[in-house]
Amino acid sequence: MQLGFVGLGKMGMNMVERLIKGGHEVVAYARTAETVARAEALGAKGANSLARLAGGLTAPRAVWLMVPAGDTTTQVLDELLPHLSPGDIVIDGGNSYYKDSVRRGEQLKARGIGFMDCGTSGGVWGLKNGYCLMIGGERELFARLEPVYRTLAPPDGYGLMGSAGSGHLVKMVHNGIEYGMMQALAEGFDILKASPYKLDLHKISHLWNQGSVVRSWLLELAEQALRDDPGLDKLQGYVQDSGEGRWTILEAMERDVPAPVITLSLFERFHSRRPDSFAAKLLAALRNQFGGHAVKTR
Amino acid sequence: MQLGFVGLGKMGMNMVERLIKGGHEVVAYARTAETVARAEALGAKGANSLARLAGGLTAPRAVWLMVPAGDTTTQVLDELLPHLSPGDIVIDGGNSYYKDSVRRGEQLKARGIGFMDCGTSGGVWGLKNGYCLMIGGERELFARLEPVYRTLAPPDGYGLMGSAGSGHLVKMVHNGIEYGMMQALAEGFDILKASPYKLDLHKISHLWNQGSVVRSWLLELAEQALRDDPGLDKLQGYVQDSGEGRWTILEAMERDVPAPVITLSLFERFHSRRPDSFAAKLLAALRNQFGGHAVKTR
Repeated sequence: MQLGFVGLGKMGMNMVERLIKGGHEVVAYARTAETVARAEALGAKGANSLARLAGGLTAPRAVWLMVPAGDTTTQVLDELLPHLSPGDIVIDGGNSYYKDSVRRGEQLKARGIGFMDCGTSGGVWGLKNGYCLMIGGERELFARLEPVYRTLAPPDGYGLMGSAGSGHLVKMVHNGIEYGMMQALAEGFDILKASPYKLDLHKISHLWNQGSVVRSWLLELAEQALRDDPGLDKLQGYVQDSGEGRWTILEAMERDVPAPVITLSLFERFHSRRPDSFAAKLLAALRNQFGGHAVKTR
Repeated sequence: MQLGFVGLGKMGMNMVERLIKGGHEVVAYARTAETVARAEALGAKGANSLARLAGGLTAPRAVWLMVPAGDTTTQVLDELLPHLSPGDIVIDGGNSYYKDSVRRGEQLKARGIGFMDCGTSGGVWGLKNGYCLMIGGERELFARLEPVYRTLAPPDGYGLMGSAGSGHLVKMVHNGIEYGMMQALAEGFDILKASPYKLDLHKISHLWNQGSVVRSWLLELAEQALRDDPGLDKLQGYVQDSGEGRWTILEAMERDVPAPVITLSLFERFHSRRPDSFAAKLLAALRNQFGGHAVKTR
């Protein structure tokens, strides 16, 4: 089918490629002409503005947004909406906070425009393997977009979770789980690395992927990272986050559900960015105060 | 090759079956005659004592122990050793604490008997998929036992980690990681279950296994559990542990490696067994003391 596509970053460009290979007609927009040209090289019809993107689509239109969550998504939607007509559909495939998606669903509905939130997982590997799509919105809209979902996802890899927002909610919790699983793997390898046995961590990660209980895609990624750089010497131990972990914790608090490991996994990332923290200084100061324990000074 | 096998529990019996299907000659011992008879039905030669087990094997013997860690393993070894001769090998395939395995390796070596510790992962599914084997001990002994390891494991699924103890160390940390991954999954599904969207958790687990970042064997097991009983209504939220998590935390402390998520995952299991804890009572009492906050009494 015909689809407008806004946002051609790491994920978006691969998705456009997968869509075109799947026989869809894609009209693509990004902020820079160079990026649009790359999409054109893949077979997309380029658009140099959201107005032209909308103009290049036959109504009722379907426009997929794959842009950063938050302000960027709001700005793109604000800019796009005047060019859409009742009956059109907007799919937010980014990592928006699910409550924003509920609100956007209502706003668009009031203008007769359909809205679907689509949590998209698979990272840069999705081009090859397909993206796991967690979709929220009305069943009728889901049915209209199904040819697109079917192309983007692996077999059985897309599904309607519930009404607007539910797709991003499920994706958000998926990412929360991801934080915890990653942290568990990270701690385990850290303990192995500290062992007096001179363990081959790459060999262990490969071995664990053969029939062990912890075999997983994340462990396959660890295996690859440890093969390329067994001591991870090229990296700094500095870990960012992109919001979904925080939102998962907010959700846990709103529903009175304990989620200590997911919470701690986020906080361990904060730790990684603050190697000489005020908390550690205060602990050292207090030990010194009450017990005269030695401190390290600058 | 010929192998003695001691311990025919859930794991052991399946391993014997896999070994026999792989063309090995197995002499099997368990405490009860009925269990031995089941191994005989699979094609093993039964033995009703450790003496007869040793007598049924041609020297140099290889005897695989698959019995509970700790006292049972010590008792079985003490009882078996008088029947073994220099040149024989004992493989501990159970979940022994790796420091016990280091000690046992030294004890047996002093008597001219080889020792290998083999961390065995794969649970009851190993019969079909093969067991992931993490092996510690001397390279020469490893080479002698390789036909057995090759049969038990999936392709690429066994490996020598290092000297005696290293197999159980790696298996121990594997289990520590498993605790954290399980807890992350558990918290995520708990948050989803508490959502006002009436989410289909089985559908979500299946979806996540198709191309998402958290796809993993543990998630496949969750999918199966949620298919059979979507609300897990048949279960009590009571979780045991079998030691490896504790030992992983001991190791982390010995090496000054922070492992907060693995630690907390064990403590969450403790929580599950103490729903009306003294800690919670004390918290309620303190809130009542300082703020007059209401408490629930019996």
